[in-house]
Amino acid sequence: MPSAIEELEAKAKAAKVASHRLAYLATEVKNKVLHNIADDLLTKKEEILAANQIDYKEAEASGMSAVMLDRLLLDSSRLDAIAQDVLSVAALPDPVGEVFDRRTLPNGLQISRKRVPLGVIGAIYESRPNVTIDISALCLKSGNAIILRGGKEAIHSNGALAKVVQEAATRAGAPAGAVQFIENTDRTLVNHLLKMADIIDLIIPRGGAELIKFVSENATMAVVSGGIGVCHTYVDQSADVAKAVAVAFNAKVQRPTVCNALDTLLVHAALAPRYLPLVAAEWAKAGVEMHCDERALSLLKQNLSLKLVPATDDDWGREFLSLVAAIKVVDSLDEALEHIERYGSGHSEAILTEEDEAATRFLNEVDAACVYVNASTRFTDGGQFGLGAEVGISTQKLHARGPLGLKEITTYKWIIRGSGQVRP
Amino acid sequence: MPSAIEELEAKAKAAKVASHRLAYLATEVKNKVLHNIADDLLTKKEEILAANQIDYKEAEASGMSAVMLDRLLLDSSRLDAIAQDVLSVAALPDPVGEVFDRRTLPNGLQISRKRVPLGVIGAIYESRPNVTIDISALCLKSGNAIILRGGKEAIHSNGALAKVVQEAATRAGAPAGAVQFIENTDRTLVNHLLKMADIIDLIIPRGGAELIKFVSENATMAVVSGGIGVCHTYVDQSADVAKAVAVAFNAKVQRPTVCNALDTLLVHAALAPRYLPLVAAEWAKAGVEMHCDERALSLLKQNLSLKLVPATDDDWGREFLSLVAAIKVVDSLDEALEHIERYGSGHSEAILTEEDEAATRFLNEVDAACVYVNASTRFTDGGQFGLGAEVGISTQKLHARGPLGLKEITTYKWIIRGSGQVRP
Repeated sequence: MPSAIEELEAKAKAAKVASHRLAYLATEVKNKVLHNIADDLLTKKEEILAANQIDYKEAEASGMSAVMLDRLLLDSSRLDAIAQDVLSVAALPDPVGEVFDRRTLPNGLQISRKRVPLGVIGAIYESRPNVTIDISALCLKSGNAIILRGGKEAIHSNGALAKVVQEAATRAGAPAGAVQFIENTDRTLVNHLLKMADIIDLIIPRGGAELIKFVSENATMAVVSGGIGVCHTYVDQSADVAKAVAVAFNAKVQRPTVCNALDTLLVHAALAPRYLPLVAAEWAKAGVEMHCDERALSLLKQNLSLKLVPATDDDWGREFLSLVAAIKVVDSLDEALEHIERYGSGHSEAILTEEDEAATRFLNEVDAACVYVNASTRFTDGGQFGLGAEVGISTQKLHARGPLGLKEITTYKWIIRGSGQVRP
Repeated sequence: MPSAIEELEAKAKAAKVASHRLAYLATEVKNKVLHNIADDLLTKKEEILAANQIDYKEAEASGMSAVMLDRLLLDSSRLDAIAQDVLSVAALPDPVGEVFDRRTLPNGLQISRKRVPLGVIGAIYESRPNVTIDISALCLKSGNAIILRGGKEAIHSNGALAKVVQEAATRAGAPAGAVQFIENTDRTLVNHLLKMADIIDLIIPRGGAELIKFVSENATMAVVSGGIGVCHTYVDQSADVAKAVAVAFNAKVQRPTVCNALDTLLVHAALAPRYLPLVAAEWAKAGVEMHCDERALSLLKQNLSLKLVPATDDDWGREFLSLVAAIKVVDSLDEALEHIERYGSGHSEAILTEEDEAATRFLNEVDAACVYVNASTRFTDGGQFGLGAEVGISTQKLHARGPLGLKEITTYKWIIRGSGQVRP
């Protein structure tokens, strides 16, 4: 009987072999795979939900928190939504095969760059079983083979979903082996997987900060990850107060647990007396706790209905992921820019202003994946940006920055066609 | 007195500060910097050559090899050529500021991607002083700040050249601090530099395999490096014999010490009896030693003027960097593709064929930065590909593949302009 590691290696190699054919599989075949997946999610709903119930009951019995249980749970309407997402990916243009920078050199060589898949992508994720389908759909549409390693808590759900993907892929004519699922939940296998740089071209960790940190530190291959979003919104002295209240409210409150939510509000001193009491009153209605610097505190303390906490040094540069915001009053755009440079994580940063010059300086000088003028940072998202879907949001500068769609999980090769040219 | 490490950190921080202004410096100013460098290389020729002579004499006295001494040496005409290269970079289009993927979303948000510099680039290189100028020119043209760490052997030359770059940059109006030069040749400083991921966005190692390996393994930030080029040329049964002799000759002999030179020649069995004796005879005239598999050996052994060695397993996948080639006879295109997949390093691979179908399969199925039909792999080069210049050739799949020009040392940011939009 093969050991778990031998089995893992065999699966990885099978994915590598499949990746060669996947690389130039016709768009229609890839779309057929995705349509099959969407169909099968519906026709095999009972099986999938039964598997999910096993996970759910085990998790419930083990005392999993309500939030985590909700992440784990699948139901009929969630499966419908997942199937719909797969169809959306099917409807996106195929990034593979695009030819760009085509030219003929003086010596007659015809040279171009051609977009190709990365090869084999590994996904390491936690308790949301929908990731099995999301990542598979994105990878297969972009011609990549995929190795799925989901969390122990969702093992039955993931197994059922991976089987759907595998059968759907094979039935459409995708090469066998294109979708690999690691059933063994032994954690040492993850360590082994992260060292297989000769087979796996990219690892995508999906989950909490701890998982992402572990994968980033231990992977020998490239990693793209959601990273940390410490997002600032700077309200300039020229800001439109009503707009600025609405935008800051949205950025903090609309979904506080995600990386593109507002963490620190910076407010110009000239506008702060007028603006801060208004936004604070709105935030208070939604239950936001405000960690204020001294000047903000003195402007807000009269309103006894606010949850105010004096800010400590730890509040700057902190990703709250909850209904908490840090507030700082600054004397100038320069001070705001310095604060963002020091404490930002390069994710999403916004200025609210009615002055072009301030907007332009902010857009030029802030070094982040996404820089906004007069809009909520909550828009940082592949779907919102028109990429159709995303595998994550990168705060790295190389390869791709911000939301990562289909194109961002491809690479290119240089194609050179000659008639016997030699280099002089 | 500050310690060497404190001094290094101060320089790195100064580069980071300068990078903010460099990021949106006008193209004319950046071009002026490059023109100043080219001018000063000529007007300060005596100083530079005097500094170079100090290095040269020390190196000569220490018993440096003739090849290495030649790499170290500057003379009047070499400086002229270096200045000319700087002017070529000045003439290239500025990659920074290019706006792409611009669209207006249904909610009125105007979204686009804008090309921006990476920030701070560190260059770690060995004994060629021209790298000081080449890398500086490419980084400054692309708006990046640069930290230069050259080899001990060339310390006086590099110091003189770095001073030229610094003065030229400041005179043109570039921010002070944009070009940093580490005079201290203590090797522990390199280790420290490689851990400064919070300041340095990219490290470019330029030099031998050992340096590149050391940097790749120890850097905490992104690294782009020349990597290893194990390059195959496959001569298909349909190849034009005369063309195939000329191309294989060029690929092996024109400059055998570089990464894009031919390492292994794969020849289809049907053509081998006719082709191999011809190419071997040409190679022999240039002094090429041939490491042959059994079938190649039996076809060539009659010709006693050839330098033939029976190939061992180590010869496959070996980068020779010299006048040595491995030769293998294969029975099919499939066998050639399998060999390349197993032993190639993803650099440059060629097929010589007159059949479209074989060419298309090769281009599709070989996973390498550059894939050729009927041309010498020696063309893999930023200058040859029309990028104007290169900082290296990447065999990685992420970020950029093959020759890295100006655009490849930039990134982009998402720019989103709104009028108060919030996410529903």
